[in-house]
Amino acid sequence: MQHFTDIQPRTQAMAAISVGAELFAEALEEQGVPVARVAWRPPVGDLQALTKVLASQEVERANALALERVLAAHPLIVDVQPAREAMPDAFTRRKLLHAGPPISWERMCGPMRGAMIGACLYEGWASGEEEARELLAGGEIACEPCHHHNAVGPMAGIISPSMPVFVVEDYVHGNRTFSTLNEGLGKVLRYGANAPEVLERLRWMGETLGPVLGRAIRQMGGLDVRAIMAQSLQMGDECHNRNKAATSLFARQVAPALVESADTPAQAAEILRFIAGNDHFHLNPSMAAAKAIMLAGANVPHSSLVVTMARNGVDFGIRVSGLGERWFVGPAGLIQGLYFAGYGPEDANPDIGDSAIMETCGVGAFAMAGAPAIVQFIGGTPEDALRYTEEMYALTMTRNPHFSLPALNFQGVPTGIDIRQVCRLHMLPVINTGIAHRQPGIGQVGAGIVYPPMECFEQALEALAHQL
Amino acid sequence: MQHFTDIQPRTQAMAAISVGAELFAEALEEQGVPVARVAWRPPVGDLQALTKVLASQEVERANALALERVLAAHPLIVDVQPAREAMPDAFTRRKLLHAGPPISWERMCGPMRGAMIGACLYEGWASGEEEARELLAGGEIACEPCHHHNAVGPMAGIISPSMPVFVVEDYVHGNRTFSTLNEGLGKVLRYGANAPEVLERLRWMGETLGPVLGRAIRQMGGLDVRAIMAQSLQMGDECHNRNKAATSLFARQVAPALVESADTPAQAAEILRFIAGNDHFHLNPSMAAAKAIMLAGANVPHSSLVVTMARNGVDFGIRVSGLGERWFVGPAGLIQGLYFAGYGPEDANPDIGDSAIMETCGVGAFAMAGAPAIVQFIGGTPEDALRYTEEMYALTMTRNPHFSLPALNFQGVPTGIDIRQVCRLHMLPVINTGIAHRQPGIGQVGAGIVYPPMECFEQALEALAHQL
Repeated sequence: MQHFTDIQPRTQAMAAISVGAELFAEALEEQGVPVARVAWRPPVGDLQALTKVLASQEVERANALALERVLAAHPLIVDVQPAREAMPDAFTRRKLLHAGPPISWERMCGPMRGAMIGACLYEGWASGEEEARELLAGGEIACEPCHHHNAVGPMAGIISPSMPVFVVEDYVHGNRTFSTLNEGLGKVLRYGANAPEVLERLRWMGETLGPVLGRAIRQMGGLDVRAIMAQSLQMGDECHNRNKAATSLFARQVAPALVESADTPAQAAEILRFIAGNDHFHLNPSMAAAKAIMLAGANVPHSSLVVTMARNGVDFGIRVSGLGERWFVGPAGLIQGLYFAGYGPEDANPDIGDSAIMETCGVGAFAMAGAPAIVQFIGGTPEDALRYTEEMYALTMTRNPHFSLPALNFQGVPTGIDIRQVCRLHMLPVINTGIAHRQPGIGQVGAGIVYPPMECFEQALEALAHQL
Repeated sequence: MQHFTDIQPRTQAMAAISVGAELFAEALEEQGVPVARVAWRPPVGDLQALTKVLASQEVERANALALERVLAAHPLIVDVQPAREAMPDAFTRRKLLHAGPPISWERMCGPMRGAMIGACLYEGWASGEEEARELLAGGEIACEPCHHHNAVGPMAGIISPSMPVFVVEDYVHGNRTFSTLNEGLGKVLRYGANAPEVLERLRWMGETLGPVLGRAIRQMGGLDVRAIMAQSLQMGDECHNRNKAATSLFARQVAPALVESADTPAQAAEILRFIAGNDHFHLNPSMAAAKAIMLAGANVPHSSLVVTMARNGVDFGIRVSGLGERWFVGPAGLIQGLYFAGYGPEDANPDIGDSAIMETCGVGAFAMAGAPAIVQFIGGTPEDALRYTEEMYALTMTRNPHFSLPALNFQGVPTGIDIRQVCRLHMLPVINTGIAHRQPGIGQVGAGIVYPPMECFEQALEALAHQL
C-alpha cells in the first residue's frame, strides 16, 4: 500500500537562508523568495586576540572556577550601620564614594555634582553650596568609586561616612558588600537634589531608619536576600527597575522585628510607612547582594567573566575577573525608553549608576522574561521582555539555578557575561535603567533600555590576550 | 519579470482538517496524512432549549446589563467585625454557615462535620464532641450556605457568630459581602480540625486579630481590595491557590495603621508575624471581593451569567443571574493534581469550598497565564497554565480590564461564565483548588485542577429556556 507521504511534489519553491548582511535578504524577498534570517555579525576588535582567548584552556578553567564561586555565593543582609563603621577603610579621610568608574570633579555630570554637594552639606563639611563646590574642586574631599570598597549605589551613588548602609555578607566566601538605603522618588540625593528637605530626609534615615532597621535585622539573625530576590523573580520583579514584590516581601518579613526594635509604636509606624511608600526600597539590598555574588567570582586569573558594569553618568566601565581591579572604559550611552509626562530625550543625562550590577549578575534586563509588566515602565511589549532574556543566553556562561524564571519553564537566568562572547557575536549586554534629568535635583524623568559601549569589551579582550 | 512565487508546485500533498471525532483523525494520520484538529464536541443537553436561549435577544440584553454591573463593581475592605454584628440577619438563632449549596448534617463530608463540631465548641454551645454531634444531628443548630448571606468561606467554610469577618463593600452598588479570616495551614477548622489548639487560635483571632485589624482598616478609611488583586495578578498570583503577592501587598499596606491600632508593640508584632507566616492570608478578602463583584451581576432576569460556583464536599452547585437564588446541583468532583508527601488520591475528599467564586469572577484557574509558578503546587507545566486561561475565553462573555495579564499582552482575564457557551461547546470551566483530607482535621493534602459536573449547567439552561 502506498502512503500519501510517498508522493512528493515535483517542483519545489525556492527558499534562502541569509547569514549576516540584511541587503541580500531584502533583495531575495523582493523577488518573492522566502528568507530565513540568521542573526550573525562578524566579530569585533582584534581577531588574533579573540582567537587566542577562545582557544585558551586556561581561560576555560578559570571561568569554571569563577562561575562555581558565583553560583555558590549566598548573600544575607546582616546589618545596617553608618558607612564609617561598616567600611572603616573607606573613610580614613574626608571622602565621598560615587557610582561608576573613577572620575574627577571637573568631568562629573550635573546630577553627580549636585549629590556630592548635598553630601558635603549633610556631613556638615560645608555650610553652603559654594563652599562645598570649592572643597570638592580643590580636592579637599576625596572621591572614589563605591566599587573600590565593595559598595554599590544607584544613580549618583554617593556614600558619605554618616549615611547608613545595608551590610550584606556572602556567608560562603565571607565577603561583605554595602549599599545605601533607598530614599524614594522625587527630589532625592541620588538624582542630584540637595534642597533642605532632601538633607532632612537623609538625617531621619541616619538617625531613625538606619538604627532601627539595623536592630531589627540583627534581632532576626539576618535576612536571606538571595531568597527574597529569587521569590521576587517569580513575582514579576526583575530586581532592577521593578522591585515591588521584593520590597513587599522585605516589608512583610521585617515588620514584626521592626515593631519590636523601634523606640515607640509611632516610630515603627513611620518607618513602615516610609518603606511601604517606596516600591524601590529593596533595589539597594538587591544591588549589594548582586555585588556580593559577582565579587565571589572576581580576581580569578585569566577568567573572561565580567564582574562589574557601572556608570558615572559620563563613562561606562567594566571590570573582568582575570584582569583584577583594572577598569575598561567608554562613553556612557543614551537611554531609549519612555519619558514621564513633560520630559523628553533633551532632558536626559547619559547612563548613570552602579545598578548595572544587577545585569552583571544575570537579573535586571537579563531577567525581563519574568517581569512582563515592566514594559509599561520602560517601553516595548511583553514579547520584547521575553526576547531580551532569550538573547542574553548567548552572551553568558551559565544559568543561575537559584534565580529561575517560571515563564521559561523554570530555567535559570542567563548569568556570567563572557567578554569573549560579546566580541565574537558582536552583541552587547542589555541593561534596563532609570533616566536621570541632566540638571541636578529634578530626579527621574523616565526609564528604558541602554547598552554599554563595545570598546570596553574590546579593550578587555586585548588585555586578557596579552596576559595569556 | 516573473516572480518565484508565481511558480506553484503541480502536485500538492494531501492534508486534512478533523472536526470532533478523534477516530477519523487517527485513521488519516496512520496513512501519513497531516491532520489539523479542531477541538469541537457536539453540544450537550436539550438542543431545543439551547437553540431557544442562544437566539434570545432578551438574554443578550440581560447579559449586557449584568456584565456592565460586574465590571463596574469596586469592592473595598471596609472593616473586620464579629459575624453576628456584620451579618445580624444571618444569626437571629443558633446557626452555622457552611460552604457550597445547602446540605443536611447527615449528608455532610468528614471535614465539614469536623468543622461544624469545632464551631459548636468554639461558641460554647457544647462542651464536648458528642454533645455537639447531638445538637447538630437534632437540628438544634441550623445550617445554611454562606452564599445565602453574601458570605464566602474556603474549604468547609464554617462561619459562626463570634468569628471575625472581613466586611467588603462594593461602593458602586452598595452591596456588602463577608469572609472569615484565614487561619493558616496545618490543623485548622476549615479542614475539619477541632483540637484545643485550633479553638485556641480561633479565640485569639476573635479577641485580638479581628478587633485590631478592624481598627486599623477603619483608621485607613478602607483598603482597595480590587487594586490589591489587580496588582497581585501582575505579580504571579492568580488569587486562588497563589496569594503570596496579595498577602505581601496587604501586609505592607496595613502594617503602619496596625501598629498604631494595637494595644502594645508586642501585640502588633504578634499579628504581623501571624499574617507574614501565611501566604494565603489574602485569599479570604479576595474571595469576599470576588463575591461582591459577582453579586453586582446577580438577579438580572434572563441573564445566562454564572454568579456562583460553590462546593460543600458532596455537591457542586451553581447559581445563574437570571435564575435568582435557585441552585443547580451535581456531584462534587475529584481533584487531579499533586499530593503532599505521604498522601495520595485515596486520602482526598471531593471538591469543597466557596473558593470557586474566584473562577466565577475570572481569576483563579482562569488567570493562571499570569501565575506560571503555580504549576509547582498544582502540577502541569507553565504552558498548561497559559492554555487554561486561553481556553476560558471561549466560555466567558468578556475580559475584565481591571484584572489584566502582562503575559497575554495586558489582556483582561476571561470573565463571566455563560451557561450557553458551556453547553454549546461541551466544555467546562476549570477550577484550581486545594485537596482536603477526607478525615476531619488532617488538613490540606495536595492541590490540583477540578471541573464542575456538566449537569449543573444543563439543568440551568433548561430552566432559563423554560423562563423565556
